[in-house]
Amino acid sequence: MPTIRADELERICAELLTAAGAPQDEARTVAAALVRANVAGRDSHGVMRLPQYLVAMERGSVVPGAAIETVRESPTTAVLDGNWGFGQVVATCATEMAIAKAKELALGAVAGRRCNHVGALADYVETIAGTGLIGLMFVNGHGGAHNTVPFGGADRRLCTNPMAAGFPTDGDLIVLDISTAAVAEGKARTYRIAGKPVPDDWIVDSEGRPTNDPNVLYTKPQGALLPLGGNVGYKGFGLGMMVDLLAGGLSGAGTSGPDPERGGNAFTVIALDPDAFMGEDAFRADATSLVEWVKSSRPAPGFDEVIVPGELERRTTQRRSTDGIPLPDETWEQIRAAAEKAGVTVG
Amino acid sequence: MPTIRADELERICAELLTAAGAPQDEARTVAAALVRANVAGRDSHGVMRLPQYLVAMERGSVVPGAAIETVRESPTTAVLDGNWGFGQVVATCATEMAIAKAKELALGAVAGRRCNHVGALADYVETIAGTGLIGLMFVNGHGGAHNTVPFGGADRRLCTNPMAAGFPTDGDLIVLDISTAAVAEGKARTYRIAGKPVPDDWIVDSEGRPTNDPNVLYTKPQGALLPLGGNVGYKGFGLGMMVDLLAGGLSGAGTSGPDPERGGNAFTVIALDPDAFMGEDAFRADATSLVEWVKSSRPAPGFDEVIVPGELERRTTQRRSTDGIPLPDETWEQIRAAAEKAGVTVG
Repeated sequence: MPTIRADELERICAELLTAAGAPQDEARTVAAALVRANVAGRDSHGVMRLPQYLVAMERGSVVPGAAIETVRESPTTAVLDGNWGFGQVVATCATEMAIAKAKELALGAVAGRRCNHVGALADYVETIAGTGLIGLMFVNGHGGAHNTVPFGGADRRLCTNPMAAGFPTDGDLIVLDISTAAVAEGKARTYRIAGKPVPDDWIVDSEGRPTNDPNVLYTKPQGALLPLGGNVGYKGFGLGMMVDLLAGGLSGAGTSGPDPERGGNAFTVIALDPDAFMGEDAFRADATSLVEWVKSSRPAPGFDEVIVPGELERRTTQRRSTDGIPLPDETWEQIRAAAEKAGVTVG
Repeated sequence: MPTIRADELERICAELLTAAGAPQDEARTVAAALVRANVAGRDSHGVMRLPQYLVAMERGSVVPGAAIETVRESPTTAVLDGNWGFGQVVATCATEMAIAKAKELALGAVAGRRCNHVGALADYVETIAGTGLIGLMFVNGHGGAHNTVPFGGADRRLCTNPMAAGFPTDGDLIVLDISTAAVAEGKARTYRIAGKPVPDDWIVDSEGRPTNDPNVLYTKPQGALLPLGGNVGYKGFGLGMMVDLLAGGLSGAGTSGPDPERGGNAFTVIALDPDAFMGEDAFRADATSLVEWVKSSRPAPGFDEVIVPGELERRTTQRRSTDGIPLPDETWEQIRAAAEKAGVTVG
């Protein structure tokens, strides 16, 4: 497995995106987001997506340089139409708007539709938390990309419908980024590649029967992911509907439905200013003490310590910033091949 | 098991609360909330709580008629100090304020602290959704009431930290009300009373070892609830921290921590106006179609149909509104005894 330096990988990605027709600022935004995901260990949202992006740009389903239209706006809210530009570009714009609105009026919520893959949600709530605000984000598959059954159901009805939350502390940010399915599809795929059964409560076969065989997701008739929660999966299913309504409903993209043409991401990003409540300093101090309190727990058997949301990714970021990013041969070969074709220097 | 008519039960509760010193309007609010929970089948938040409330009033930990102070306020936000009044009264006030703010500026968020048990969260988000807005609510144990381990931990560090979401549709409201622990403590208690083992992934013993024996929660050294999610319980744990920060952090009550004196509930209730996004009608239509879409799934083996959040409670409400509320003998006897003592007519 080759190991690539983050700055080198980011340069290659940005140049590849520029060569494929992206404006320089968009190329930089997208490349930085992809590599940041790899650096944090969120490899499924990293540069393995780049070859897809390049194909989508060629096909026209990603429109580089697309104008972001503000469809509706109020002092606290906005709805953006991304005109099928890069998801990272549209969601970054929405995040900046939500922050500005919350700095002004304590709360801001910006929804976006008709955009492509936004990447790791953690990025956006981390940006918000980095300014001292609380960030929340909800993303659906623009009404499509169904891979998850409802609780008690046998058919794919929802996307993994992820959500994220970021909070400032006096130390490291608290950053939660989870799908409301038991796991993201990519996680089941790693078990399939390794030839291993998946843990209980992750997937069902095409008849809605629980199974540990990840192959059911990749053969016909197709199985599906279960909602988060196992025997209380009505909770994950309910959270998935909540995410669908906040992301697809508010943005106008639409929630999950029978239209097979729907693709891309829709989202709503919310910022709250703790300063309007009991003060930013008080909030940070309280959040800091919560982290200390939960980490003071004895570990359960089989665990070394309690890890708070975002902590593992931060450790990986520290390591990979120094040591470089290990990439699967296949991903690296795809990027090298694309670079050669585009005349982008590698290494 | 005696069966009591809802209006009769509500009258008895209100008179008992009044006799114990509650102003009439507060007594009516609390009695209605308790009985509404019973009618919806949320019995653990129903009149079985009344004897506790009466004791707490006598002890002075519930202060009837307490003034609700607005500690901080902005056009979109507020923080309320409940001065240890009834949780239902303080949370109802906060809900009305959040609605008014969202009707004005699209978003409203009101946090509350120093109040007692708020009851079923569903009530408040249902009220918000009933006005055509989206309601979100987050509640912690005012920093105390720890009964849930962190993911990978062996010690009680969080409360069950519930959250709720309500959405308008063209038909019935979508109402999600869940704890971020695997289950509420009361649910494990029903298994203990029935002498049955609890399902997997609900509880651990005092050493953090998974167990199916509900008795570990009620003996020393004490076990604990697990966060939602089983083998991906870091998700439920992360959601629990999110709820703690939004409820305890914003309100100034404080998040979960080592102070054993903390009690009661703290909360944040948020209202969003879909009208400021793509319009209330569009949102309702979309939410309606989402319900149809998820319910169109074939049922999984062992299930008859897909049930959406709030649907079971609505069916129970229809049934119990007509047939009356079945109450455990113990609860009914406690209420009868209290009524006799207070000179309140029963039956």
